[in-house]
Amino acid sequence: MKTTIGFIGLGNLGTPIAKNLIAAGYHLQVYNRTLSKIDELDQTSITKCGSPAEAAKSVNFIITVLANDAVLRQTVVGDEGILKTLPLNAIHISMSTIAPDTAEELADLHKQAGNSYLASPVFGRPDAAAAKMLWTCISGEAEVKEAAKPILECTSREVIDFGEKVGSANVVKISGNFMIQASMEMMAEAYTMAEKFGVDRGIVAEFFGNTLFNAPIFKSYGKAIAEKKYEPVGFTTELGYKDASLVLKLSQQSKTPMPFANIIHNRLLVTIAKGRTGADWAEAFGKGVTDDAGV
Amino acid sequence: MKTTIGFIGLGNLGTPIAKNLIAAGYHLQVYNRTLSKIDELDQTSITKCGSPAEAAKSVNFIITVLANDAVLRQTVVGDEGILKTLPLNAIHISMSTIAPDTAEELADLHKQAGNSYLASPVFGRPDAAAAKMLWTCISGEAEVKEAAKPILECTSREVIDFGEKVGSANVVKISGNFMIQASMEMMAEAYTMAEKFGVDRGIVAEFFGNTLFNAPIFKSYGKAIAEKKYEPVGFTTELGYKDASLVLKLSQQSKTPMPFANIIHNRLLVTIAKGRTGADWAEAFGKGVTDDAGV
Repeated sequence: MKTTIGFIGLGNLGTPIAKNLIAAGYHLQVYNRTLSKIDELDQTSITKCGSPAEAAKSVNFIITVLANDAVLRQTVVGDEGILKTLPLNAIHISMSTIAPDTAEELADLHKQAGNSYLASPVFGRPDAAAAKMLWTCISGEAEVKEAAKPILECTSREVIDFGEKVGSANVVKISGNFMIQASMEMMAEAYTMAEKFGVDRGIVAEFFGNTLFNAPIFKSYGKAIAEKKYEPVGFTTELGYKDASLVLKLSQQSKTPMPFANIIHNRLLVTIAKGRTGADWAEAFGKGVTDDAGV
Repeated sequence: MKTTIGFIGLGNLGTPIAKNLIAAGYHLQVYNRTLSKIDELDQTSITKCGSPAEAAKSVNFIITVLANDAVLRQTVVGDEGILKTLPLNAIHISMSTIAPDTAEELADLHKQAGNSYLASPVFGRPDAAAAKMLWTCISGEAEVKEAAKPILECTSREVIDFGEKVGSANVVKISGNFMIQASMEMMAEAYTMAEKFGVDRGIVAEFFGNTLFNAPIFKSYGKAIAEKKYEPVGFTTELGYKDASLVLKLSQQSKTPMPFANIIHNRLLVTIAKGRTGADWAEAFGKGVTDDAGV
């Protein structure tokens, strides 16, 4: 008999993760705000649920992949939230990119309810999720991490442990998104300057992506920014802006002056202000810099 | 009989390059401002020269690896400069990191003198030079590039052609140094913020260096910045500041607003102001950020 897992959040990332779990043999109790998204999954391997509480009923694990801190908090503590039904000793595997203090707060609430919260934000775009190539960062109690690992391994290329403090994985996730955004800004600045000197920005991007900056971020986003091709959208400016806001919040909370974070936040805010919230975040940086430079 | 090449500039990078050329069988006519540096080379393979003009006498190629635009210009056009003696049709292979307009100006002067100038700035630290692992960026006339390639290949892992416009390779080199500096700043900001949240900055740096940012820059400088170990010095803050100034100059010349470039310039200037011009440039970023953050 298949093990049943609760699953909440069929966004761009949640959907391929849910499919990986189904492929690995799990049965899912699925809740999603937009119900029609559930139809994309193999219906013989899922049970449709009308609320987070229903998805969390009688399971040992519930996974959430949600857009932000507020939605996750509501999903946990709302009138029809997870905490209403999640069994004793069950584990909430939380994959959303949220602030570490939200993670700590939710972990406390789960503890009071007799179950556990595991921070497990992931790195990777939807195609990486589909290919089970996510990097999953975890932090929390040792036995909780141990219990959740087999599930996380169904959708990850690697599960990396950042210790017992529950918010640590979220700090790493936010740091990483900050570094991705900084990489896009620096490529946009460098390639636009090169272009204005008459150097082919595609050749420059290819050179750096194959040499000093021979890493996935610089190859994929480097090509998009060099070619000024920002479609299809993989990750929206709106979500990028949420991350940039989290970075500023963490900068303030920890009293770490981060001048790059201010520029990144501003860059995304310009694109939001122009109503392009749905544009790929690479466009916010790439087009932001070329627009400023008049090309 | 060995081919003789002129060689000027035995700095941290020039010395291993000169040694590679000697190992490849060339005889060098060497000039260096500090004469004692010449003693490091195999004396049977070199001729000591008292001036740039002497080093350029009767050769088909002269290589310069100098600290900045002013020193290079003086070496070319000074009273005892290269142009006084360099034969007709000879080629000046210029490896220094300089502004594209200086390259264009020197190329014009060489043309008037009946010989040629090849922009060929290199990427790589001294150990990479010693291992013949430099990336050499070239731009200039096709036949000049073709003629110089066998020499450049003695010291490079790859020679990359950026076209006919002589300043293009310099634009690429300056863009690359800007991106390296931006990478150090962003790692310093991210790792310091993580540290202040109680996350081990070494583990964070290792994670990113092995995953999303799996490239030489993030591994080597990431480790230094994470561990706050800035010795031995590979590239000084003074030289980094020169590069950052060149980036600002190019930003202004090309009318490309580059907010990251302003922050980078300021970061290096702080370290210069504190009298730490000889510190590794990674210290300027790493210690600059931790100092600001009070850790």
